[in-house]
Amino acid sequence: MNDKLQQLKEKLKLLRMYDHALGIISFDFETIVPKDAREEEADVLNFFANEHFKIRNSDESKKLVLDLYKEKDSIEDPLDKKLVEYLYDDLQKTINMTPEFDLKMSEIYSKAYNTWLEAKEKKDYSLFKDSFKDVLEIQKEAVALREKKLDNYYDNLLNDCEEGVLQEDLDKFFAELKEGLLELMDKIKHSKHVIRDDFLSRNVPIYKQEAFSNYLLKLNGYDLNKGALTTTEHPFTTPIARNDARVTTHYYEDMFLSNIFSIIHEGGHAILMQNERDCDHDHFINDHVSNGMHESVSRFYENVIGRSKEYIHLIYPKLQETFDEFKDVSERELYEAVNIVKPSLIRTEADEVTYGLHIIIRYEMEKMLSNGKLSVDDAPAMWNKLYKDYLGVDVPNDAEGILQDVHWTSGFGYFPSYALGNSYNAMYVKRLEKELPFKELVKKGDFASINKWMKENVFIHANVLTPKEWLKELTGESLSPKAFLEYLNNKYKDIYQF
Amino acid sequence: MNDKLQQLKEKLKLLRMYDHALGIISFDFETIVPKDAREEEADVLNFFANEHFKIRNSDESKKLVLDLYKEKDSIEDPLDKKLVEYLYDDLQKTINMTPEFDLKMSEIYSKAYNTWLEAKEKKDYSLFKDSFKDVLEIQKEAVALREKKLDNYYDNLLNDCEEGVLQEDLDKFFAELKEGLLELMDKIKHSKHVIRDDFLSRNVPIYKQEAFSNYLLKLNGYDLNKGALTTTEHPFTTPIARNDARVTTHYYEDMFLSNIFSIIHEGGHAILMQNERDCDHDHFINDHVSNGMHESVSRFYENVIGRSKEYIHLIYPKLQETFDEFKDVSERELYEAVNIVKPSLIRTEADEVTYGLHIIIRYEMEKMLSNGKLSVDDAPAMWNKLYKDYLGVDVPNDAEGILQDVHWTSGFGYFPSYALGNSYNAMYVKRLEKELPFKELVKKGDFASINKWMKENVFIHANVLTPKEWLKELTGESLSPKAFLEYLNNKYKDIYQF
Repeated sequence: MNDKLQQLKEKLKLLRMYDHALGIISFDFETIVPKDAREEEADVLNFFANEHFKIRNSDESKKLVLDLYKEKDSIEDPLDKKLVEYLYDDLQKTINMTPEFDLKMSEIYSKAYNTWLEAKEKKDYSLFKDSFKDVLEIQKEAVALREKKLDNYYDNLLNDCEEGVLQEDLDKFFAELKEGLLELMDKIKHSKHVIRDDFLSRNVPIYKQEAFSNYLLKLNGYDLNKGALTTTEHPFTTPIARNDARVTTHYYEDMFLSNIFSIIHEGGHAILMQNERDCDHDHFINDHVSNGMHESVSRFYENVIGRSKEYIHLIYPKLQETFDEFKDVSERELYEAVNIVKPSLIRTEADEVTYGLHIIIRYEMEKMLSNGKLSVDDAPAMWNKLYKDYLGVDVPNDAEGILQDVHWTSGFGYFPSYALGNSYNAMYVKRLEKELPFKELVKKGDFASINKWMKENVFIHANVLTPKEWLKELTGESLSPKAFLEYLNNKYKDIYQF
Repeated sequence: MNDKLQQLKEKLKLLRMYDHALGIISFDFETIVPKDAREEEADVLNFFANEHFKIRNSDESKKLVLDLYKEKDSIEDPLDKKLVEYLYDDLQKTINMTPEFDLKMSEIYSKAYNTWLEAKEKKDYSLFKDSFKDVLEIQKEAVALREKKLDNYYDNLLNDCEEGVLQEDLDKFFAELKEGLLELMDKIKHSKHVIRDDFLSRNVPIYKQEAFSNYLLKLNGYDLNKGALTTTEHPFTTPIARNDARVTTHYYEDMFLSNIFSIIHEGGHAILMQNERDCDHDHFINDHVSNGMHESVSRFYENVIGRSKEYIHLIYPKLQETFDEFKDVSERELYEAVNIVKPSLIRTEADEVTYGLHIIIRYEMEKMLSNGKLSVDDAPAMWNKLYKDYLGVDVPNDAEGILQDVHWTSGFGYFPSYALGNSYNAMYVKRLEKELPFKELVKKGDFASINKWMKENVFIHANVLTPKEWLKELTGESLSPKAFLEYLNNKYKDIYQF
């Protein structure tokens, strides 16, 4: 058996070479590839992803995984055992797939990405529609090919993103969340307090924003020797290799806050990546932090820290030093402005209160589109209707509507992670506040202590536990939006003085 | 035979996928990879370069090339025939190499690159010395393994870079060039004219330099939809794919001219790449423009155009608009300053007159190191001595001395190309000036006409002719530094008023 484990690890080492190359090429594709070279570069990506698939799904690899799985109870090292279980689960998804199917799938996704970019640029959903249909169709075919699957189709997609957190959980979770958010929005709506926001759209040159981004990343504990920062259309973070977790952002001259919170958010993902256990890497299980857990961390840095009174106090002097555009803005005015609640069109720019509604809209649409209650043709109209119903806003065009996010170019299942992330971190922050003088640490910028606590409590088992197990282990409780709603109510009571 | 040609092209299509991936990863490696991930990324590069080698040097590929070469006289399409000849020549170099040897070679080169970066940063040659020895040793072993080779060892390296231009040619060429340059330097030394240079080291923020770089690239005819601009330690241009020729630069706050001429130089390489014939690409012979030809083009844009009175006239208004740092600098002062002759330490910053001496020093050192007349240990002392003898400058440290260039991390042979490039373009510009109102076109910024002439005359046969054939075809003459010396004398007579 040890011999087989050894052989398996040799394969995984080889696959890691392909993953590393694919990571670099994907990063290039999303950050710097010139317009006219996009298609050629997508071909390269698809070719090497397919080579990766062929190694992973070869008869030899399959046999190794299946043999080891049969003997898994006699594997001594628990992380080796976990690895075999993960590979077995993954294999259930691909065992009946041909390399041709895998290639076709990649080609559909990359074509969808290219058409999405173009459609968004031209604010025209009709340019993306056919690709979107192809994506949903191939995702359905891929699920149909699985050796093991859940009865409800959409549950399979949810389960891929957040193992064990299915429609039943989410329906309940989102119902409670929605109710709480709408109640809070109502209180805010009736507040007489006016938050100053005139300076939010002031023009700020990009080079100043760049300097400030580097300051924030370093401040929060991101190690630039093990990562890099550059720009993209839709900010993301990617773990290219053990010592290479890269962050991206998008600068807008007339929305300086957009970059600031992208940076803190993406930096949060990267801090998790830079602080995963070495043993997880050594055992090839380092990519098993669920999306919801990951978002809990990024949104912990973005919101719980980044939008707190203490953090604004901490960064205010540097902000004044970097930007002479805000000489007339006080610390309190800045704090209130980064927390202004305003139903709006764009998810990534939304405040903490309305954000959840953006997610609920996407979740409901994914459900309807997955179970045939909504067609791809009618999707923009439904999108616009839900934005009107839930947020009261009119969507002026598809770019600011259904085309705003990149996610649907590679299928469904991801969005709930963001809302789960908010609730996860609200739950574990309660423990953090008991064990450390959290607010004081933020105020004095002691991120070493905060990141150490995160590493030792939040990150430590993230690669080996399911979201539900991890949350139980970390907080002693089960998933609920209560702590998050409580956090929001406390915070906004002070801001909106209700 | 057509069947074999078809099989060969299938292999080349596959190899092009690997080339494309390697191009992206190399680009990443030289532009953005974080410090702590360099080694891991070098492993990825070496792994895929080795996979490329295995395909290229497989028994199957070898047989195809050898079989087709035997029947080459019956290949109808002249570009197909050329392709087979090129592959046959390449095969003579690798036919006796094992994949293990190829991997070892890559590993030595990438280690040399990493140690060079570190040594340069720490200004300490001793950190690079052992790697340098390894590079020279493996280059020697690789030549020894060739099926066909030239008698003189160094000639093989020269021939790889500039086919047919060997020591015998270069000794004669450099002797004449050196004499002419020293004579001209003497005239300049005795000129009483003083060129104003106080503003050259003024601090210029990088964001302004970035904006100006984009202006210059577009102005000269570089297509940003088929390329990109970013930063690196040592500027280079790379043809990643048919529609992807990328340019890099290095910004120094206190040397704004450094970036300007890097940009024009690298942009020149890229304009050639963007204007190669489609049929060359379709026949897989698009990477056969010699280094000297390539440098002739980049240095045509950099010097003949970029440092001309007409070009300075053209860009002066935009320069004034972009940089308020130079309000007190007149057009004539700027023109003279970009042409100031001053013996100095750094090749890439050198003026057109002393530049040749930087190359001659490197050529002489390569010869000595290749034929055992100089040891790697003694190389810095010899470097410093030659700089004192030829240029009269004292080298203060290795970073500004022997460690300044990246080239020796991958062996010898390249440097003469730069000097050849200068002489090539001086020869063909004489024809250009007869056929087009060249100076007027520069003055009004009509690069479409200039680039068209370059495409139809200079670039057109560059992939199918040897440098000597190409020069004959283009100018009717043989290699000589005369035209270049004449060009310099005319230009500097006006500037230094002798």
